Amino acid sequence: MMKLYYGPGACSFVPHVGLEAIKAATGEDFEAQSVKLHKGEQRTPDYMALNPLGQVPLLVVDGKPLNQIVAICDYLDRRFPQAGLLPAEPWQRAQAMAHFAWMNNTVHPTFTRIFRPGNFVDSDAAQAELKSKALAAFREHLERIQAMTAHAAPFLLGERLSFVDAYALTFLRWGGLAGIDPDTLPAYKAFAEKLAAAPAVAAAMAREGIALETYKKP
Amino acid sequence: MMKLYYGPGACSFVPHVGLEAIKAATGEDFEAQSVKLHKGEQRTPDYMALNPLGQVPLLVVDGKPLNQIVAICDYLDRRFPQAGLLPAEPWQRAQAMAHFAWMNNTVHPTFTRIFRPGNFVDSDAAQAELKSKALAAFREHLERIQAMTAHAAPFLLGERLSFVDAYALTFLRWGGLAGIDPDTLPAYKAFAEKLAAAPAVAAAMAREGIALETYKKP
Repeated sequence: MMKLYYGPGACSFVPHVGLEAIKAATGEDFEAQSVKLHKGEQRTPDYMALNPLGQVPLLVVDGKPLNQIVAICDYLDRRFPQAGLLPAEPWQRAQAMAHFAWMNNTVHPTFTRIFRPGNFVDSDAAQAELKSKALAAFREHLERIQAMTAHAAPFLLGERLSFVDAYALTFLRWGGLAGIDPDTLPAYKAFAEKLAAAPAVAAAMAREGIALETYKKP
Repeated sequence: MMKLYYGPGACSFVPHVGLEAIKAATGEDFEAQSVKLHKGEQRTPDYMALNPLGQVPLLVVDGKPLNQIVAICDYLDRRFPQAGLLPAEPWQRAQAMAHFAWMNNTVHPTFTRIFRPGNFVDSDAAQAELKSKALAAFREHLERIQAMTAHAAPFLLGERLSFVDAYALTFLRWGGLAGIDPDTLPAYKAFAEKLAAAPAVAAAMAREGIALETYKKP
């Protein structure tokens, strides 16, 4: 059986939603193992033996580990194409991968600069500069995703729920944690609310114990 | 015909090498269009109409644009599997994608912090801090890639040249530009020298007008 190691609310939510959609479409079940990132469980020797990068997500298939969200999702889509987690038509799939890669190599690292500025600079002054500029960039990225939601039909890539939708929901939650009020992104918020009601998304959120709303009014 | 927009020495080298390998394996030719990044040609209205991200690489297929290196390379591999640019066996392909994604979302952005620190922080002091920490991280990443070269047979993923090899060569060149002496990474340097002699790699380097050696002794 496949086993997913995930951190509640982390980017591992993306393959988590995918595995729920695969289970619904094919009956193929999976195990889900929570990793408490705030307690550093991703840095224990047992975990590092499976994933030397010390990160989630990690997918174990027949005892063999696979890391990196893009690699895990591409693998799941190829193995379970009937779940439709990425489009089947080659050019549409390529465009979907372009969105997915941009989220992974641009939006996601921008949030890391807000959330863990000490990974990049040491002094308090430099950390404040880094966070401030990253927050402005992250908001621009969210606005770009909001523009994509205008064409949602009903999902970002069309009729089927995809990995790109799950990443979009994750980023709006992270935005709330970073102090971005989702009410300032009303179309994005409305899209995420509908998404959160989709069965595979709702199931993954319930297991992770997370809510869509993360923003606290100051 | 496919058309690749590339910046000499930029990460667009990765699909550039792929297109040369595809041409050799299948006869499918391509056009290559240089984009002078130092002159800001990636920010002209004509280019931004094709790629709103203002980045290379960009692949145009039948007049339609595709951006993001991971999406372009996945598309090329699916369309031309006979070129063997990623492994055909599903689990090996998944592991290859994990390396590729790590290079794209971790190693590559680390270099961006060295090369364009002003994208992330404003003050000179903060830029110096950011560069210094990024340089140390980039060196660690290069050492991780060097460890991979110990298993090269003769390429990083086995018998066939892959996108992962072309990215590895790119990073060693970038390391030289950042002041990392390739002589301090002797196994990596030796691997890259052999790689540079592979016909598809040599053809792409010749068209881009780039040499493997970028490091200048202080």
